[in-house]
Amino acid sequence: MTGSSLRTLMLGVAFGAVTAVAALADPLPSWSDTDSKARIIAFVDQVTDPASDSYVPPADRIATFDNDGTLWAEQPVYFQLIYAIDRIGEMAAEDPSLLDDPVLKAAAEKDYDTLVQGGTEALGKVVAVSHMGPVEAFEASVANWLATARHPQTGMAYDTMTYQPMVELLRYLRDEEFKTYIVSGGGIHFMRVFAEQAYGIPNEQVIGTYTETEYVVENGVPMIVKKPGIAFVNDKAGKAINIDRIIGKRPILAGGNSDGDFAMLEYSTAGDGARLGLLIHHTDGDREYAYDRDSHIGQLVDGLDKGPDMGWLIVDMAQDWQRVYTGGE
Amino acid sequence: MTGSSLRTLMLGVAFGAVTAVAALADPLPSWSDTDSKARIIAFVDQVTDPASDSYVPPADRIATFDNDGTLWAEQPVYFQLIYAIDRIGEMAAEDPSLLDDPVLKAAAEKDYDTLVQGGTEALGKVVAVSHMGPVEAFEASVANWLATARHPQTGMAYDTMTYQPMVELLRYLRDEEFKTYIVSGGGIHFMRVFAEQAYGIPNEQVIGTYTETEYVVENGVPMIVKKPGIAFVNDKAGKAINIDRIIGKRPILAGGNSDGDFAMLEYSTAGDGARLGLLIHHTDGDREYAYDRDSHIGQLVDGLDKGPDMGWLIVDMAQDWQRVYTGGE
Repeated sequence: MTGSSLRTLMLGVAFGAVTAVAALADPLPSWSDTDSKARIIAFVDQVTDPASDSYVPPADRIATFDNDGTLWAEQPVYFQLIYAIDRIGEMAAEDPSLLDDPVLKAAAEKDYDTLVQGGTEALGKVVAVSHMGPVEAFEASVANWLATARHPQTGMAYDTMTYQPMVELLRYLRDEEFKTYIVSGGGIHFMRVFAEQAYGIPNEQVIGTYTETEYVVENGVPMIVKKPGIAFVNDKAGKAINIDRIIGKRPILAGGNSDGDFAMLEYSTAGDGARLGLLIHHTDGDREYAYDRDSHIGQLVDGLDKGPDMGWLIVDMAQDWQRVYTGGE
Repeated sequence: MTGSSLRTLMLGVAFGAVTAVAALADPLPSWSDTDSKARIIAFVDQVTDPASDSYVPPADRIATFDNDGTLWAEQPVYFQLIYAIDRIGEMAAEDPSLLDDPVLKAAAEKDYDTLVQGGTEALGKVVAVSHMGPVEAFEASVANWLATARHPQTGMAYDTMTYQPMVELLRYLRDEEFKTYIVSGGGIHFMRVFAEQAYGIPNEQVIGTYTETEYVVENGVPMIVKKPGIAFVNDKAGKAINIDRIIGKRPILAGGNSDGDFAMLEYSTAGDGARLGLLIHHTDGDREYAYDRDSHIGQLVDGLDKGPDMGWLIVDMAQDWQRVYTGGE
């Protein structure tokens, strides 16, 4: 045994003891004592109890979560789009020729009406132009943005607008030997900048949309460079497809908030044995936002209509959560 | 603390003690006492010793390995291709109309000369036709093949033609808190059938080539269905690209055996700090196969010419390995 192995072993024992004490406390303190909380805990107890018919060994305790609207807020628009628009402004300050393009000009001027009128094509261009270059440089730019930009309505740093009850749920699941994944329509290189710190989810458990990339060796330095063009949209059926490709196991728990998550929940909860599908219903216009069927962001129709019959838990944010954001207060 | 948590904690302590005893023994008993073994152990000691300048925390101890020719044999042709040819024979027995196609007829008759003359197009068709349908059914077919098919030259089951020294290396790395990945040109659904049992590598750490897939709900049952057409070829630069997409961390150790692995080793070993690139050189015509520069499978030119200058370890199979296959003897 090496010295480092011994230290690791001792740390493991000490950490185990700390975890044991923590587990005596409420694992979900920001959740109200409603049926939602009881169902989540009952599910976890069931799949982790070796004496239960529904026992699932740790290797198969896969839990996947959408990000936008499920783990952090997504209004008035996806935060990654706000980053993209802000980034175009920065880029245009360095290279004014970008302003010759009407879409990029609208982005630089934060003329949201023109961008929205331009539809997917306009927004696609904003994302493509702002999401280029070496991965390391892109990630540094996102980190800088998170450190300085503030949400237009709450005034909070974006990465503090994570949902505290969900952060607790992720931690609780990991304490019970689940492997927690993000499976989001958001970009992998964008999310990886904050996922570890905000959620305790390491890069290799962040699954999302990705641009085309190229392997480049420049002056002997190999790097991955982001190119214009989306290589894979990790939304709707794409979430189930990517879960198969990247995880290769059917999750036993899946959480989302919009119809973009329907296929992921359907695929996950159709497996054998105990499964939990969970939809965050944005019912809290006072503390957060209230939206579902008619929203342009996070539209939720099928989930509300069919989810309950499929046994999915519809989390009522206003009733079930004692606290919303991790930051603030 | 729940009963299951307590059990887990106790098991953790007991397991730690067992690991400690095992670590006193030689971690690589099938490796000869040559420089190769010494270099591997010195590298692992260096990155796991908290007092070392080269210390790497466990979360960043990513090790990636090619499969064909690195973890198991690949001669006379990739084993997955043998599966594909065998599978066409089975399919033609059920549906003789397949024999109308000259390429599929050649496959069904194991007429390798015609297949090889047909080049990539012919082999692509053989793979496409044999790799279709629901993922579960495909995996069952591969499992059945592994259980019954035997290698034409050794007479061994294919999944016992793994390299015992590499199985030991994978286990040693995991004991030292590395996360071990396969990053192979082989297909993900093919490799996942045996990777856990053969190598201790779970599905979510198997990265490879994949076909197009579709998410299908049939009679209320959601499934992933493999379609003709390769969606991503996980070879050469594709390996570095997929490591970025799926792992999102630069490996500190990468192992391969052919020029298809060059980019992966180049990308991995260019990172800061201590890195280990490792190439298996097939020098053992008696116990295995001897091939490198002129081989149609596992061709190795750049690795031999540039690898040593890049500090890569060239493992000499004949000299460095006391034993080759996990099975047999």
